[in-house]
Amino acid sequence: MGTSSTGLSGTERTRVRRLPERAASDRQELYDVLDAGRICHLGVIVNGSPRVIPTGYGRQEDTLYLHGSTGATSLRGDEICVTVTHLDALVLARSLFHHSMNYRSAMIYGRPRTVTAHEEKLAGLRAVVEQLTPGRWDVARQPTRKEMAATTLLALPLAEASVKIRTGPPGDDEEDYALDVWAGELPIVSSYGAPVPDPRLRPGISCELPHSR
Amino acid sequence: MGTSSTGLSGTERTRVRRLPERAASDRQELYDVLDAGRICHLGVIVNGSPRVIPTGYGRQEDTLYLHGSTGATSLRGDEICVTVTHLDALVLARSLFHHSMNYRSAMIYGRPRTVTAHEEKLAGLRAVVEQLTPGRWDVARQPTRKEMAATTLLALPLAEASVKIRTGPPGDDEEDYALDVWAGELPIVSSYGAPVPDPRLRPGISCELPHSR
Repeated sequence: MGTSSTGLSGTERTRVRRLPERAASDRQELYDVLDAGRICHLGVIVNGSPRVIPTGYGRQEDTLYLHGSTGATSLRGDEICVTVTHLDALVLARSLFHHSMNYRSAMIYGRPRTVTAHEEKLAGLRAVVEQLTPGRWDVARQPTRKEMAATTLLALPLAEASVKIRTGPPGDDEEDYALDVWAGELPIVSSYGAPVPDPRLRPGISCELPHSR
Repeated sequence: MGTSSTGLSGTERTRVRRLPERAASDRQELYDVLDAGRICHLGVIVNGSPRVIPTGYGRQEDTLYLHGSTGATSLRGDEICVTVTHLDALVLARSLFHHSMNYRSAMIYGRPRTVTAHEEKLAGLRAVVEQLTPGRWDVARQPTRKEMAATTLLALPLAEASVKIRTGPPGDDEEDYALDVWAGELPIVSSYGAPVPDPRLRPGISCELPHSR
């Protein structure tokens, strides 16, 4: 069993027992968690209250791009928190108390900026599309100038971030290992179901599944 | 294609084109989204900044119970937002602009209270355990008095909530339906992988998969 918490920035809220020599692998860990996700949960403050919004995102090097259509009105310059979570397995212990889950989770804090430069906006949108639906950027119709203008894209630096990962079997109390209760991990697997063609799809066009990641 | 947004409470932030006669089905919709989930994303404000934490939850009638060990220090009486999201399908359009996702999402706002009464705490913990690992409450060792005391359980009334659901094919621009691009829905399916027994599991104990929901 292992639970690792990694702060990549040294601020109070992301500093978690970090050894300097782990810095490079920590950053790779952050990339891995982000790159394996499909959607994030975006935390904002609206009229003094927290709000958590599921939305699309993409990464390019050390920038996270967010599709700003959802709740974007409140995001200009304000601090946000972006969380990406993978639930990898249910962890069944012999005692209810030690039931847990194996997961990977990344949390990023910062103030997003609105992307206005055309080149960066195109690259950022590509990252967002390819994150959710890999391989589609090159096959679908490209955005028009008007569509680009109608799309808000936010950029968040991967400057203040932390990663939490739990792996392995349950950690039961010593005396409970004698119990007649099954214990272990039950992996949760995500896969694609059979594609459902658009009712208006023209005949003779086959579906290419998005690349797996 | 359909996107429905449903406010169940009539406050500004959850009021979304709601017809009074839909109230009963709206509430059932909220239950359905919550009951089908495994984890939620909990939004809190810590030192003036938003924070989004993945955590376990369970529902009993019109109360949502939250396992309070994570970030619980900041939760006493403060307003929180709990979001549960299901990503049901990738929606592949002919244009990049109309790429989307089919999802169900529930958002609940409120101020949680800490559960102290023994009976309610036991029932609430049961709801949390059964939400993540259905069927385990009756087979694993019950919590001791000490374990109960070491566990913080929060209760949030399902009073102010909204549900958003998108279903169906993409909505492409009329002229794009002539394009040679596959379009439709690609369902995302979650299933259990092969159980991984705890290395210290006693011989002769077989794994019963949690009930499906």
